[in-house]
Amino acid sequence: MKTAIITVGKEVLTGKTTNTNLRTIASRLNQIGIDVNRSFVIDDKLEEYHEILDFIDEDLIIFTGGLGPTIDDITRETVINYFGVDTYINQDILKGIKSYFDHINVEMKDTNNKQALFPKKSIILDNKLGTAPGVIFNVNNKTIVLFPGPPHEMLPMLEELIKYLEKVNEIKYFSKGFKLVGTGESTMEKSLTGFYELHPNVNIAPYAGIGEIKYIFTSINKLDLENAMNEFYKLFPKFVFGDLNDTLEGVVVKLLTDKKMIISVVESCTGGMLASSITNVSGSSSVFNESIVTYSNEAKIKYLDIKLDTLNTYGAVSSECALEMSKKLFEKTNSDITVSITGIAGPTGGTKEKPIGLVYFGVTFKGENKTYKKMFNGNRYMIRKRATIFALDLVRKELL
Amino acid sequence: MKTAIITVGKEVLTGKTTNTNLRTIASRLNQIGIDVNRSFVIDDKLEEYHEILDFIDEDLIIFTGGLGPTIDDITRETVINYFGVDTYINQDILKGIKSYFDHINVEMKDTNNKQALFPKKSIILDNKLGTAPGVIFNVNNKTIVLFPGPPHEMLPMLEELIKYLEKVNEIKYFSKGFKLVGTGESTMEKSLTGFYELHPNVNIAPYAGIGEIKYIFTSINKLDLENAMNEFYKLFPKFVFGDLNDTLEGVVVKLLTDKKMIISVVESCTGGMLASSITNVSGSSSVFNESIVTYSNEAKIKYLDIKLDTLNTYGAVSSECALEMSKKLFEKTNSDITVSITGIAGPTGGTKEKPIGLVYFGVTFKGENKTYKKMFNGNRYMIRKRATIFALDLVRKELL
Repeated sequence: MKTAIITVGKEVLTGKTTNTNLRTIASRLNQIGIDVNRSFVIDDKLEEYHEILDFIDEDLIIFTGGLGPTIDDITRETVINYFGVDTYINQDILKGIKSYFDHINVEMKDTNNKQALFPKKSIILDNKLGTAPGVIFNVNNKTIVLFPGPPHEMLPMLEELIKYLEKVNEIKYFSKGFKLVGTGESTMEKSLTGFYELHPNVNIAPYAGIGEIKYIFTSINKLDLENAMNEFYKLFPKFVFGDLNDTLEGVVVKLLTDKKMIISVVESCTGGMLASSITNVSGSSSVFNESIVTYSNEAKIKYLDIKLDTLNTYGAVSSECALEMSKKLFEKTNSDITVSITGIAGPTGGTKEKPIGLVYFGVTFKGENKTYKKMFNGNRYMIRKRATIFALDLVRKELL
Repeated sequence: MKTAIITVGKEVLTGKTTNTNLRTIASRLNQIGIDVNRSFVIDDKLEEYHEILDFIDEDLIIFTGGLGPTIDDITRETVINYFGVDTYINQDILKGIKSYFDHINVEMKDTNNKQALFPKKSIILDNKLGTAPGVIFNVNNKTIVLFPGPPHEMLPMLEELIKYLEKVNEIKYFSKGFKLVGTGESTMEKSLTGFYELHPNVNIAPYAGIGEIKYIFTSINKLDLENAMNEFYKLFPKFVFGDLNDTLEGVVVKLLTDKKMIISVVESCTGGMLASSITNVSGSSSVFNESIVTYSNEAKIKYLDIKLDTLNTYGAVSSECALEMSKKLFEKTNSDITVSITGIAGPTGGTKEKPIGLVYFGVTFKGENKTYKKMFNGNRYMIRKRATIFALDLVRKELL
């Protein structure tokens, strides 16, 4: 199934945005054995659509972007008209768009009507996170797919497309994977020397993120897939925290829930990112009651009675302060485990002794206090993000 | 100068890598008034190069990738042969490649010789970070550019290209923009009916994100550009919070810094996201000392003495509770402005009276207490994110 992905948008062509949709769609298609042949980025002009559609000969053609309500958003009508298929206005979708606007208390504009235009024979891809629905239709032995541009709106529709393609495609691919934390891609690749050759029927691909790596395994043979995954897991039991649907914070909240434990955190340089990450998990309210951001020394004293002596002798960014923070937080809250983070996120405030990226952590659990010292790379956001992930992983390892 | 960027590489087509070169090159060209017309990603097969080169009619054609020494790296010879220009082996470059291999203590292969192949009339782009030099050459009134794929090798060559283009180009384009909050794309478009026609020499394009919209203005006439932007600003002074380089939290931190004011926040459903967002701004430590996440009712009572009566009569998600939270936080901290957030982020916990997405805000500033009620759409993350943006915008408006 030769595939072309066409991204519509000035924002990509002017370099205001990175084309992440291409990567997302291509890697997901890859998992079910579909190769992307070519990819295009075009401007939202009628003639650009026509030129590309005249040019390409792929069997599966996926557009992203240009489904919105503005006059610039012409993907839906242009592509549908190009193929000359019969259309209709879907009243259910129209109602859905109306109720979306009611729900957010905004008046619906006439221009939104065109978002309910569909080929007569088509599969509608619901948009629960915006007003622009997607669509799949078949014409001239080709499958045409229209996705909205915003990644969070596109993502659920991509899963619908995968289901559809798995149905029409005869070979079924199996795809699973692991998520890992606490290791890096080059370290992993070194450890995996020779591993790929032992599993020739399984496609194994790493995808590195900030502080996290995914390994995705794909095969048409379920047994081969499971073998490869078992062998892989045996190599890295400490680093694997879950499968592709897991999030590190989700795993931590589940561990806490299973053990009926309460967590509290106190943050300095991450400024609420750890608390925010835990509370982004639905159901976190049963394991999380309270947390504090003690950004200034005064706040550290006010909320946790951190000794002035500790702050003066060792400084706020120190193992001693991190230890005292998690210990005092444990004493002052009804928690089973407490974590503290204090560090230098930059871009200013670094010194020779305490450079940017230096972060101390404290963990208090089962009467024990532990501290950790780490150096993180990257800009302010990345240092904060990596510190948050490291703290979550500390909790995960303590609870296991 | 119509421009096409062609990325060569299976890595991008399988979703292993994000095509960051496109963004880097496009945004840099944009700064000197050159629009990228279209962009392509192709596999490194001879026929793929030929098909694309037959198809495109752009004046400036930039390839990235496929300049390395392996048999898969065929960009250089394929593109040069396609245009049928005379070539030669550059002995200086060949020597350079040899000494690079000496330097890294690796034996040079014959296949590396091809990296010294150039059109007779061409500008060689030195590669100080790898073995593959780039090249600029002109043929049939077109400018052809070949860059290596690795971003750090490509970057210095891009600057050489920019210098070259600035010399040959005569027209200069200008590009600026606004970021807006508190409005939606369709509402904006309705308000802008007729506006685009009044500014025919300015390209004006909206880009919507979660809770935020950008409008980017581009023109060859600086005065036209400034006129359009001034008129635009007059229409939406309340919504515009900054230019394209600004972030909402950055603007808020700057306003607080300028007014020498301290902010504290208390969060329930956003669970630290607002604090984390403020503290992601470098320099926020001068306006931010402390904050709390009071997720449970007990924490609301413990940290802020929220009246049991308020919680029992109105519930934690209520205007009354939001009001009491920001008021008590103001009393208990040495802050000039306090903000509270309490709501239902879902996906569970919604009721008919208090559905998912319902969020209350409290603001205490200059002796006044205000509350706000909002309904947000989307999943848990988006509701939290939108609540965070709304709270930041409340602070911005109070401070203005």
